[in-house]
Amino acid sequence: MMKAIAYSTALCMAAVWLAMPATASGAADRDKLLSEPGVYGTFAAFSFDEDWTKEDQRTRIAHLMVLKGVVEQYQEKLAIDLYLLRGLSDHADLLFRIHATELRDTQKFLVDLQASLFGSHLKTAVILNGLTKKANYVPGFPEQMKADLKAASEPGDKPYAIVIPIRKSAEWWSLDQDKRAEMMKEHTEAALPYHKTVKRKLYHSSGLDDLDFITYFETSKLEDFHSLILSLEKVKEFQYTRRFGHPTLIGTVRSLDEVIEILAQ
Amino acid sequence: MMKAIAYSTALCMAAVWLAMPATASGAADRDKLLSEPGVYGTFAAFSFDEDWTKEDQRTRIAHLMVLKGVVEQYQEKLAIDLYLLRGLSDHADLLFRIHATELRDTQKFLVDLQASLFGSHLKTAVILNGLTKKANYVPGFPEQMKADLKAASEPGDKPYAIVIPIRKSAEWWSLDQDKRAEMMKEHTEAALPYHKTVKRKLYHSSGLDDLDFITYFETSKLEDFHSLILSLEKVKEFQYTRRFGHPTLIGTVRSLDEVIEILAQ
Amino acid sequence: MMKAIAYSTALCMAAVWLAMPATASGAADRDKLLSEPGVYGTFAAFSFDEDWTKEDQRTRIAHLMVLKGVVEQYQEKLAIDLYLLRGLSDHADLLFRIHATELRDTQKFLVDLQASLFGSHLKTAVILNGLTKKANYVPGFPEQMKADLKAASEPGDKPYAIVIPIRKSAEWWSLDQDKRAEMMKEHTEAALPYHKTVKRKLYHSSGLDDLDFITYFETSKLEDFHSLILSLEKVKEFQYTRRFGHPTLIGTVRSLDEVIEILAQ
Amino acid sequence: MMKAIAYSTALCMAAVWLAMPATASGAADRDKLLSEPGVYGTFAAFSFDEDWTKEDQRTRIAHLMVLKGVVEQYQEKLAIDLYLLRGLSDHADLLFRIHATELRDTQKFLVDLQASLFGSHLKTAVILNGLTKKANYVPGFPEQMKADLKAASEPGDKPYAIVIPIRKSAEWWSLDQDKRAEMMKEHTEAALPYHKTVKRKLYHSSGLDDLDFITYFETSKLEDFHSLILSLEKVKEFQYTRRFGHPTLIGTVRSLDEVIEILAQ
Amino acid sequence: MMKAIAYSTALCMAAVWLAMPATASGAADRDKLLSEPGVYGTFAAFSFDEDWTKEDQRTRIAHLMVLKGVVEQYQEKLAIDLYLLRGLSDHADLLFRIHATELRDTQKFLVDLQASLFGSHLKTAVILNGLTKKANYVPGFPEQMKADLKAASEPGDKPYAIVIPIRKSAEWWSLDQDKRAEMMKEHTEAALPYHKTVKRKLYHSSGLDDLDFITYFETSKLEDFHSLILSLEKVKEFQYTRRFGHPTLIGTVRSLDEVIEILAQ
Repeated sequence: MMKAIAYSTALCMAAVWLAMPATASGAADRDKLLSEPGVYGTFAAFSFDEDWTKEDQRTRIAHLMVLKGVVEQYQEKLAIDLYLLRGLSDHADLLFRIHATELRDTQKFLVDLQASLFGSHLKTAVILNGLTKKANYVPGFPEQMKADLKAASEPGDKPYAIVIPIRKSAEWWSLDQDKRAEMMKEHTEAALPYHKTVKRKLYHSSGLDDLDFITYFETSKLEDFHSLILSLEKVKEFQYTRRFGHPTLIGTVRSLDEVIEILAQ
Repeated sequence: MMKAIAYSTALCMAAVWLAMPATASGAADRDKLLSEPGVYGTFAAFSFDEDWTKEDQRTRIAHLMVLKGVVEQYQEKLAIDLYLLRGLSDHADLLFRIHATELRDTQKFLVDLQASLFGSHLKTAVILNGLTKKANYVPGFPEQMKADLKAASEPGDKPYAIVIPIRKSAEWWSLDQDKRAEMMKEHTEAALPYHKTVKRKLYHSSGLDDLDFITYFETSKLEDFHSLILSLEKVKEFQYTRRFGHPTLIGTVRSLDEVIEILAQ
Repeated sequence: MMKAIAYSTALCMAAVWLAMPATASGAADRDKLLSEPGVYGTFAAFSFDEDWTKEDQRTRIAHLMVLKGVVEQYQEKLAIDLYLLRGLSDHADLLFRIHATELRDTQKFLVDLQASLFGSHLKTAVILNGLTKKANYVPGFPEQMKADLKAASEPGDKPYAIVIPIRKSAEWWSLDQDKRAEMMKEHTEAALPYHKTVKRKLYHSSGLDDLDFITYFETSKLEDFHSLILSLEKVKEFQYTRRFGHPTLIGTVRSLDEVIEILAQ
Repeated sequence: MMKAIAYSTALCMAAVWLAMPATASGAADRDKLLSEPGVYGTFAAFSFDEDWTKEDQRTRIAHLMVLKGVVEQYQEKLAIDLYLLRGLSDHADLLFRIHATELRDTQKFLVDLQASLFGSHLKTAVILNGLTKKANYVPGFPEQMKADLKAASEPGDKPYAIVIPIRKSAEWWSLDQDKRAEMMKEHTEAALPYHKTVKRKLYHSSGLDDLDFITYFETSKLEDFHSLILSLEKVKEFQYTRRFGHPTLIGTVRSLDEVIEILAQ
Repeated sequence: MMKAIAYSTALCMAAVWLAMPATASGAADRDKLLSEPGVYGTFAAFSFDEDWTKEDQRTRIAHLMVLKGVVEQYQEKLAIDLYLLRGLSDHADLLFRIHATELRDTQKFLVDLQASLFGSHLKTAVILNGLTKKANYVPGFPEQMKADLKAASEPGDKPYAIVIPIRKSAEWWSLDQDKRAEMMKEHTEAALPYHKTVKRKLYHSSGLDDLDFITYFETSKLEDFHSLILSLEKVKEFQYTRRFGHPTLIGTVRSLDEVIEILAQ
């Protein structure tokens, strides 16, 4: 389909395409999907096949336009975020975080993506499914802690994102709610000093994959994020963790256009 | 064989093919295979090779017709169900659940499938074999619990399916039957609230693969399914579980025709 | 070499080849290899490469004739059994069980097989080496148990075969012979009810690979085999098992000619 | 692009290229990056794809010039070290150690490298991210030990480099700082005899990948390095180590020019 | 380069090449490398790529001559032994054991090997590095045991070789030298009955890879070797072993010429 178009035209078209704004209605849904409970979050990480870097730039640009098309087609119903993992994670090159009210909508998007020209270069590396839920332990926390947790994080870009899958031990789940709540209070106290510089989001995933939780972090200060994890490793609750990472996915938050720019080169 | 047929004809033929009803006799066997003890259940998950998405649509449609032919040829003797895993599971794209009175009939089907034009694009990802058996602990349960277990699940489609392989610890098997029955009663109590919205089916597989059980779930409410698993993680019996998932296979229940439609695109 | 031969001739030749009887002398050696101690048993499982199903039938038949030739060339010195794993095991498609008085004879056969036209399509999946030995604990068993163990298994085909590798814990080996003998008596009692319908053969493999034992089973009643394994999981000795399966290889016992017929299609 | 250039010219160009000195300003940054806390260290190990050794020498030289170009372009901002792992490690052929003040600068370099002609032959094997920090336990050590730690290592080349990833147990992190400091003092005492012949550098990586630490060693005396590790395995702190190696990366320190010379052959 | 040479000539050249004796000086170094402490031993196992068996015989012979050339070029400085693993180990086809006074010499050989025409068909499977050291516990053994250990092994070929990597537990290393010596005495007593028929060589590898020891065995009686391992599993010291094998490499000792003959077919 691109064969008759001259090289310069292809680049030009790409530029035009990149400049197209997302629809306003999509933006509205996105806020709800990213903040409400009962939303499914899927982390789908892919690596490129060996042919990708061997394709010429024009073919790659054509394929990236297809990526843009598929993502934008689903932006109204789904909240789709992109991350560049290449160079920082050895598991995958590209990560999609997809929020949806039904997991089959997410599946439809990913099946379409993989069936596309761009998708033919992707190899599935990791897929993690989770669910947002109302806070479990927070209602029982002291008022000051609740207030601290509500404080907004520092404004400005948070270019780094990290995904850490977690599985608790059988012993953890056998503890009664009070004991777990007490330990989660200690956990939260240890985390509070990093509340402003490290944004967190929690997904519950027991049964939806081989995990209990997917923890998602955004930050501009990776050193703070590292200190946060170190603090969390020191509290009692950490001893009930059977799997932490494996894989840890680390990368940079990127707009769809940035991803296209980077991969077009 | 398809080379002389024009593109539109191929699509048309596919449409006709898709409309062919399954034979009535097949349907009868199917009910027995899906409800009786002493039936072998095999979960065979495949991923597509790299060439699949690179084939043109017409070739893919020709291949999918072959899939349809092979499945329908065996539908009279076997109960074959299909699931789309792509996008939700990172282990495989397509799952077949096959019920048979003899495992070698299942093997014959899968060998034929893999030898077919369609099968040449499949890579075996996971094969799990199990056996349906009469309920082990239920006879000793209180009458009310037995009645609750007999209650029909809510009518309507259950679009999601999840397969979780389980291996118990050596300690579990060393417990006497009474102790295990007591814990299974607690397990069943924890599961009952989800009885109506989450359908379950159990396969015993000690010796038939590296597992003790294959648990199979169908639901339209994934959040309920998640809550069910969370409840089951909290009962004492869960502490005797050495492997839970690894892999967890999650996908959507699809008719053969739906699979063909989706993969033809 | 097959290029000048017409398709029908190739099929015809294959038919003739398939009808050639094994030599009588080979059969004699086979009985000794399969019953005596001090014989090496190797389980070599292979999967087909992606090109195999893409070859046309005539080429596949030519390759399968080569397989037949290589196997028959070694049948006099080795006892070679074939099993079809495809469809039932996710680790491999084809299993060879080879008995030899010297492991280097087995190696010679497998090196020749892999160097052949047919072998060029095989990828090594699993190789397990073991050794038959005189029964270790049986001499101390009660006379009735010894008699029961000598009872012949039910006549008739046993179409299914299962291979389960086992590694015992360091604790097991540190127990004195009496304690181990006592537990093996309990193990044998649990196994006896299945003696007639499930044939067993034991290979010792400490040092010859990452295992202590290879257990081999043949049966026509997989449900009995499953019950046998379940019974064995319940005895005390099972708690000293560190690895059980991983992989479990399950398939159907096939003559060389059956394998060729199935793979030619 | 290289097609019109004669073979001898290509070699000649390569020689000229190899002789180009690194810029002085780059060298200055390098010292700071390699000595200060708050610097990110990434270990990115790659293996060559199957086509690399099949390329003719001229193509390989052209590709290696691209490698040189990409590395030198980033040398001013990043400190990039190269190691040849091939022949000594089974995980990878080539290792890059990159120091940067921001991990996204490291990502930019590695993305560019992988997008290059040379990079098209690389398969990502392992990526480990860490952070340099001020010494945690040293301030509390006795004065003599502090002095000993400050002693310079023996002058001269240290041709061997070893990278050992470490993960501590949850129990380690749950100990109070005093107990950990005491054990780290014992650890340091055991290490001191090797201080002069084995250079060490520590990276903290909790949260940045599936580790707590990356330990990096340089030596000309591998036997001393082996004795050092053996000494460290004997101290109490080692019992709180859950992962040590897996992978251990071992190779030789190489200048960019040496790597090019070796890989051009 | 071989293209202009007729097939028969190639075979003839191969025959001549095979007949060339190793230089006498090389043999002298070899004795020292194989008997003295402070020597590095590397076990590098490779599998063939899918193209190897698909090459015609003439090409394979040309490639094998290159192998011969590379090995002989390094024989003066290194002691290089070859083993055929194919058919007995599922990890690799060909094993090189290389002894060197400096690990970078070993690296040079393996880099050259992999860069050669022959090497382009090799995929690295396993690399293990170790170091020979003076006996640690023997000096404290009773005189009779020392004498027994000095007894020569039975003359004659030892066609089988087995490599078993070992990692001890942290608890082992935390024991004091006396306790370890006592257990090693028991270990040695258990091993002595097999001293004449099973040759052993020990390499220390803490830090040089993910192991503590590489144990190497040669025997003509695999059954004796199996009994030796079984005896060693029963002594107390074995309970401090965290990894034993994984992989166990088993194969046949082969001269360079034998390897060439076998692989040429």
